[in-house]
Amino acid sequence: MTEANAKSDHYVGVDFGGTKILTGIFDPHLKCIGKSKVSTKAERGASAVIDRIVRCVKDAIDECDLSLKQVKGIGLGAPGAVDPDSGKVIFAANLGWKDVALKKELEKELGVPVFLENDCNICALGVYETELKTKPKSMLGIFVGTGIGAGIIIDGKLYSGFNKTAGEVGHMVLEVGGPKCGCGNKGCFEALASRTAIFRRVLSAVKDGQKTVLTEMLGNDLKDLRSGDLRKAIRKGDKFVEKVIEESAEYIGIAVASLINVLSPEIVVLGGGVIDALEDEMMAIIVETAMDYSLNGTMNGVEIIASKTGDDAGIIGGAVLAKKETK
Amino acid sequence: MTEANAKSDHYVGVDFGGTKILTGIFDPHLKCIGKSKVSTKAERGASAVIDRIVRCVKDAIDECDLSLKQVKGIGLGAPGAVDPDSGKVIFAANLGWKDVALKKELEKELGVPVFLENDCNICALGVYETELKTKPKSMLGIFVGTGIGAGIIIDGKLYSGFNKTAGEVGHMVLEVGGPKCGCGNKGCFEALASRTAIFRRVLSAVKDGQKTVLTEMLGNDLKDLRSGDLRKAIRKGDKFVEKVIEESAEYIGIAVASLINVLSPEIVVLGGGVIDALEDEMMAIIVETAMDYSLNGTMNGVEIIASKTGDDAGIIGGAVLAKKETK
Repeated sequence: MTEANAKSDHYVGVDFGGTKILTGIFDPHLKCIGKSKVSTKAERGASAVIDRIVRCVKDAIDECDLSLKQVKGIGLGAPGAVDPDSGKVIFAANLGWKDVALKKELEKELGVPVFLENDCNICALGVYETELKTKPKSMLGIFVGTGIGAGIIIDGKLYSGFNKTAGEVGHMVLEVGGPKCGCGNKGCFEALASRTAIFRRVLSAVKDGQKTVLTEMLGNDLKDLRSGDLRKAIRKGDKFVEKVIEESAEYIGIAVASLINVLSPEIVVLGGGVIDALEDEMMAIIVETAMDYSLNGTMNGVEIIASKTGDDAGIIGGAVLAKKETK
Repeated sequence: MTEANAKSDHYVGVDFGGTKILTGIFDPHLKCIGKSKVSTKAERGASAVIDRIVRCVKDAIDECDLSLKQVKGIGLGAPGAVDPDSGKVIFAANLGWKDVALKKELEKELGVPVFLENDCNICALGVYETELKTKPKSMLGIFVGTGIGAGIIIDGKLYSGFNKTAGEVGHMVLEVGGPKCGCGNKGCFEALASRTAIFRRVLSAVKDGQKTVLTEMLGNDLKDLRSGDLRKAIRKGDKFVEKVIEESAEYIGIAVASLINVLSPEIVVLGGGVIDALEDEMMAIIVETAMDYSLNGTMNGVEIIASKTGDDAGIIGGAVLAKKETK
């Protein structure tokens, strides 16, 4: 196809995190036709990171034998407080960013409309638009990975609140005086049930002499430990790892119940790397615990399910946002 | 004024709780011109309780030298899950009610339009409409009394969610494995910071030999202990009571921060009997703790204030609802 007759009917989704930038190219029906990934290198500063996003997007488009002219819109999820209207990242602790005009910079470089959202919001939007059979009025999407965050859908729309920070469920306190969290407080949900929390519990026990097949699999220092290794260990009958994962699933269930009590959503969708890797081991415990801890009457007809979007939640959400906004 | 020329421009607010029914009569400008109170006697069953609500409303109207013909609408807050559309109390644990067609029954007896809401929602609505100088898009009203609940305003409207149970913040877990809650779980916000929790902590310490001026004031069994007594004890220099109240204020602050992290409201208003009685002792600690525990960026420009509506929050909210709905 020559540039002259190129139709701009493709969408680009960008999942922009503290560690990596993942770009997906989507056809007009939101089918993913190609991807590209680069590391973020946040330490190089905002301008260098923006260059890397631009390169990642261009690489993915080129990989699909497309040109920027064939892209109708780009949707990008960024970690932190994001203002979709001004197109600014207001605040992103992981990146060390404050008031970065990301939309403007990307549009200047790429010449295509760019739409921004918070990363968990964009994942929730992607799940809501592509994964649910019905269109419930309210949905809570909780993503458990290195950290924990959520996107909230109210009246069929993303809800981000006064400071555009709604959904920071990882920093609900579940255990006053509990383990220290990256945010500086103690006992946050994220400090109890994220991958970081799970790995810390495993490493600390191993250091204290705990026997586990994980050390046979990965060596005594457990370098390169990943969520999938925990699943393998459990399937090999490792009772210690099973217990750690059960405990984390219970914390997730308690948090889900707390959030159902507060928000009364119609559906709760769980996603993120930890849930992807350990769905079979965790979901039944999460649902059971949530039912135990939710107040009488709050769970009637409420579904709690695992997302199947996996690592692609962010890019799918980005493409959905781009399609919605360029309609 | 004779019945013939009576203008129906008054509003009635009813605060219907597990212990008492309070009715307020309001003039066209929502000024309260009279009240009446009866006990609920929930144990006599729904039909008997409805008769008592009817009597309480009639008494208050009569006390103001008005007739039912001069009432344009009645707004009533009930404890539990309430469906304003069907006019039913779906579920109310304190009352032992399930699916009670309260609106229909009251309208039959009183011949005036009746509008129902959850009790915390109606209090939040009253605060929102009558107490705030500006009209923020979002507000969280948290009421700390015998129990703890909240009303959530999103986009200027009450938000009650899928099961009409949103705002049950008293049953967010703040301390996994903490003190037992009336709901059957452990470590709920309500089990840590409600009047019930505060009194339990005081009584248990006194039983264990703790010295306090409260026993001088009320006798060793602390029968008839009220929130106001705690304030008096603190003002008399009772360090033990001061510590109990500080601890409760800290829990409230942690819960406020958790809710700001989740909901990002523009303003948080605290009300209910405990806050009314102990505002001076608790508010500074609540605000400071909330600032400590809220995530960076979530508190920008957010106000945390105490409501001045006191015991009248429910009846004011009821009158506001009645006026809104009969416009």
